[in-house]
Amino acid sequence: MKKILLHTPEGVRDLYNDECEKKLYLQQRIHQVLKKYGYRDIQTPSFEFFDIFSKEKGTVPSNQMYKFFDRDGETLVLRPDMTPAMARCVSKYYMEEDMPIRLCYTGQTFINSAEHQGKLKECTQTGGELYGENKPESDGEILAVVIESLFDCGLKEFQIEVGHAWFINGLFEEAGINEEQEEDLRNLIANKNFFGMEEYLSELSIPDPVKDVFLSLPSLTGSGQMLQQAGKLLKNEKIAGAISRLEKIYHVLSCYGCEKYVTFSLSAMAHRNYYTGMIFAGYTYGTGDAIVTGGRYDNLVKQFGKETPSVGFAINLDRLLTAVLRQKIELPSTSDLMLMVYDKALLKEALKQAKIYRDQGQLVTLMRKNEDLSLDDYKDYAIRNNFREMSYLGEESIREVALS
Amino acid sequence: MKKILLHTPEGVRDLYNDECEKKLYLQQRIHQVLKKYGYRDIQTPSFEFFDIFSKEKGTVPSNQMYKFFDRDGETLVLRPDMTPAMARCVSKYYMEEDMPIRLCYTGQTFINSAEHQGKLKECTQTGGELYGENKPESDGEILAVVIESLFDCGLKEFQIEVGHAWFINGLFEEAGINEEQEEDLRNLIANKNFFGMEEYLSELSIPDPVKDVFLSLPSLTGSGQMLQQAGKLLKNEKIAGAISRLEKIYHVLSCYGCEKYVTFSLSAMAHRNYYTGMIFAGYTYGTGDAIVTGGRYDNLVKQFGKETPSVGFAINLDRLLTAVLRQKIELPSTSDLMLMVYDKALLKEALKQAKIYRDQGQLVTLMRKNEDLSLDDYKDYAIRNNFREMSYLGEESIREVALS
Repeated sequence: MKKILLHTPEGVRDLYNDECEKKLYLQQRIHQVLKKYGYRDIQTPSFEFFDIFSKEKGTVPSNQMYKFFDRDGETLVLRPDMTPAMARCVSKYYMEEDMPIRLCYTGQTFINSAEHQGKLKECTQTGGELYGENKPESDGEILAVVIESLFDCGLKEFQIEVGHAWFINGLFEEAGINEEQEEDLRNLIANKNFFGMEEYLSELSIPDPVKDVFLSLPSLTGSGQMLQQAGKLLKNEKIAGAISRLEKIYHVLSCYGCEKYVTFSLSAMAHRNYYTGMIFAGYTYGTGDAIVTGGRYDNLVKQFGKETPSVGFAINLDRLLTAVLRQKIELPSTSDLMLMVYDKALLKEALKQAKIYRDQGQLVTLMRKNEDLSLDDYKDYAIRNNFREMSYLGEESIREVALS
Repeated sequence: MKKILLHTPEGVRDLYNDECEKKLYLQQRIHQVLKKYGYRDIQTPSFEFFDIFSKEKGTVPSNQMYKFFDRDGETLVLRPDMTPAMARCVSKYYMEEDMPIRLCYTGQTFINSAEHQGKLKECTQTGGELYGENKPESDGEILAVVIESLFDCGLKEFQIEVGHAWFINGLFEEAGINEEQEEDLRNLIANKNFFGMEEYLSELSIPDPVKDVFLSLPSLTGSGQMLQQAGKLLKNEKIAGAISRLEKIYHVLSCYGCEKYVTFSLSAMAHRNYYTGMIFAGYTYGTGDAIVTGGRYDNLVKQFGKETPSVGFAINLDRLLTAVLRQKIELPSTSDLMLMVYDKALLKEALKQAKIYRDQGQLVTLMRKNEDLSLDDYKDYAIRNNFREMSYLGEESIREVALS
């Protein structure tokens, strides 16, 4: 027996019983929220032509994609990111629609990263995209859907960090440094390495007021009040635009009554290059990585032929599940199993009884009793497999069997 | 604009709006049936090591798999078939369990066939597997779950063709021909090319009584009565075993009351080499291909280390959807959308109204009215996007807008 026969490739996994059932429960709750907000279902293939995810789209780097060839020699990739696939679809199926379109999906995404930090290379993502509207109300709706989804999944403590791609862009405009220096600084900020940033900045000739804003980035985080103060730091059109937009989004969130789940963070950096406006990532206890990411991407869809502003989010269901499990959040049980053991001659009677229970929505496992096994054997089986109750249809009687 | 940017690779497709919502509805109904019968959820990775699906497993031929490499140079394949993956899991996670285990799944499978007959290369499969029991009751339960699933999906006219791998095997035992001849005959029978079979047989020296059974294969189809007659055709242990087992399965199905959906067909051939007992395929109008396949495979799991008999099925959700759409089967609407248009100043009021409807389970799309668009523009939008109703929250009044 080759050991490899029992293993899954590195970075992917099996999920079964309770954990799998909880994941499906979370998926279904998020889907329900998306449906309630008018999002329509869409499914796209697990693999696509490489061009859909090429560099200029601003998605995952090419060397982190799983690539293979179709029979005609075209390069195919396992979908690393849902957003470009959705952008393709909205261009293909809604080219003529000039008003808003709401789409939602659940699907697998695949990132072949070189990191060995136990990150999953295959994840399930559930998300929504709102096309055709560049309004604070659209940004706010996406955040509200995210917050309601996480709430419906049983999370009580979580924060969505919201920033704006223009803020950092405006800051670099004012800094007057070269591309390489900008790239270095972006990396330091993205990694929240603010000491490293300070050291790096001390070597650069940047106007003092601008340098001061860089240095204050770690503290540019908070609620609506922080935004007001940050707006006074520098006179720059992009920065002013970013602050003004975030203030409007804050107002929309207040109308939803969910502003307390949001922290504005002006040092936030887009984790995909296609983001052009609001960007966000959501965190909770039990997992270091973001359980949800998203933002506004007004220039991506036109690469597929349709000019349309867009905003969306994706919840990483596997990370959310990890958090829910580690936080020991109680979810309604989706598997209260009943075991019904019957004597061979009583098949018809057993099926009738089982049907009555099943019609009431109960989950019933039927097992014909082996003559060489005792009822205690079945009781042990029921206990080690977490059955909630057990009954026995014998030739002489029907009776409950206590599982304790 | 490169045209390819809007296309999906050959053999895969997008699914959206009504069609996608119907597919998800069918998936959910089948899942509910499996849960009611005590099947527990499991998810496995979309790709696995090639060895899981190698030739000796008896699954899809290697040249029909999508293959690629991981970073260590191991060959990975997109899962062409769920059954070997489930067999791996039951060996890995239930090695010590000597009593029955019921698992169910929904997942994508990928077959890179060379045929250009419009067959989908990526399909969604939902199925169940019952391990640890080789009883007519287990075979019957699997068939009953299939029938109840198809019924719950709204199908009224469908047939499950049930055969047994041993019947044909026994016939070949009696024929006394070489391997190549057997292979040729198997292909002719699998393709239901009975004229070709007759011609081929006339060249072979096979005992007349055996030849007669070959020639009568097309008519060895029907219900329980046919089985009784077929049992008298030849004295062979395998044939007798097959007939006796099918008769017992027929009895179990009668107890379930679902025998009328089953036709026994003794010329049925296993469509995967791992099947060792009962084999079946289900058909309905609107698609030529089987919407469900399955059978008993008692020798597969031990290749992964656990000796256990097994029986299972997989419904091809994409084919089932095609049939449901072509048969114009009415499914409960899962997308009765309501459009609520509001004036900018009324955001808070609109959110309050929408929440009331959403809490009642209604699907509400909120849209802030653009000043340069008229209510008629929104009405046109609602009509072309199949909204069921529309309301307008204006500065002066709240009112319904008739959509006709």
